[in-house]
Amino acid sequence: MRHARASNRVAGRSAPGYRARVRVRAFTDTDWPPVWQIMHEVVRGQETFPYDPEMTDERARQMWIETPPGLTVVAVDRERVLGTAKMGPNRGGPGAHVSTASFMVAAAERGRGVGTALLRFALDWAKGEGYAAMQFNAVVESNRSAVELYRRHGFGVIGTVPRAFAHPVLGRVGLHLMYHEF
Amino acid sequence: MRHARASNRVAGRSAPGYRARVRVRAFTDTDWPPVWQIMHEVVRGQETFPYDPEMTDERARQMWIETPPGLTVVAVDRERVLGTAKMGPNRGGPGAHVSTASFMVAAAERGRGVGTALLRFALDWAKGEGYAAMQFNAVVESNRSAVELYRRHGFGVIGTVPRAFAHPVLGRVGLHLMYHEF
Repeated sequence: MRHARASNRVAGRSAPGYRARVRVRAFTDTDWPPVWQIMHEVVRGQETFPYDPEMTDERARQMWIETPPGLTVVAVDRERVLGTAKMGPNRGGPGAHVSTASFMVAAAERGRGVGTALLRFALDWAKGEGYAAMQFNAVVESNRSAVELYRRHGFGVIGTVPRAFAHPVLGRVGLHLMYHEF
Repeated sequence: MRHARASNRVAGRSAPGYRARVRVRAFTDTDWPPVWQIMHEVVRGQETFPYDPEMTDERARQMWIETPPGLTVVAVDRERVLGTAKMGPNRGGPGAHVSTASFMVAAAERGRGVGTALLRFALDWAKGEGYAAMQFNAVVESNRSAVELYRRHGFGVIGTVPRAFAHPVLGRVGLHLMYHEF
């Protein structure tokens, strides 16, 4: 039910023509090849995620595919996978009331609302699961489209760790800790 | 060599009588029973670590015992384990030049310089390994002895996530992101 509701809402906001017809649904095993292709592309680019660019398929799968209480989803246009997200508790025990999420969109599909659809899905999911807030631990400050997307959805920058991310073109840039209390 | 040097330095700073005679050395498998006892005590207290208080022995071991490029150590008085620390890269790939570390001291041994010895060891280690900085991602703001210890050793608070830690007595308190550039 929650999946269907989020999908409809996103579809209803999409302008025809230049935005993707995005549906967000739970990841299934048959989604792994396109999800890995997106991850591989994003991680090797080294512009947005502090992940090992030499990460193997197996390690990527361990890292990205969540089990309950977390969830991994894909954004699809019919059955074509445009992007993926994972979400769940940011920490354990006394920190488990704050959620986190991560998002990756295929390079060819950026700027068409896929990230927005995934973020809105994750926020709806986290609120529905009873989390008090969502936290992003390491948003690369030069990734302006992500920073602006998060700001538009209620996130603020708690602080920025200076020079914590070695961008291949820009050199060492900051990592924002971003946070949104529900 | 690095172990011996760090130990000597700590011993040289200890005031006789009321401070522990602390030596810091690499963890070995036979240290696991006392290390797990300390972890279990710390985690069940739920006052300082956002870890699951029901964590099993096996999960704790997976989480705490680092493999290269990370390192896990114990602080000992002769062969008695007083505390433990783990250290390594805070993130992967483009974030791997910033280190992190975590520290746990047995309740009965607190206030005797064990945490100080572990922190100094970790800082020496991280500098020796060529890291540019050390970051602590989630320091419970009510854990004043830890916050003050870190401040005395050059760490500052980059930001505080409000209400992100459910303290059993104080309710929801903040988590500091603390950082020290070398």
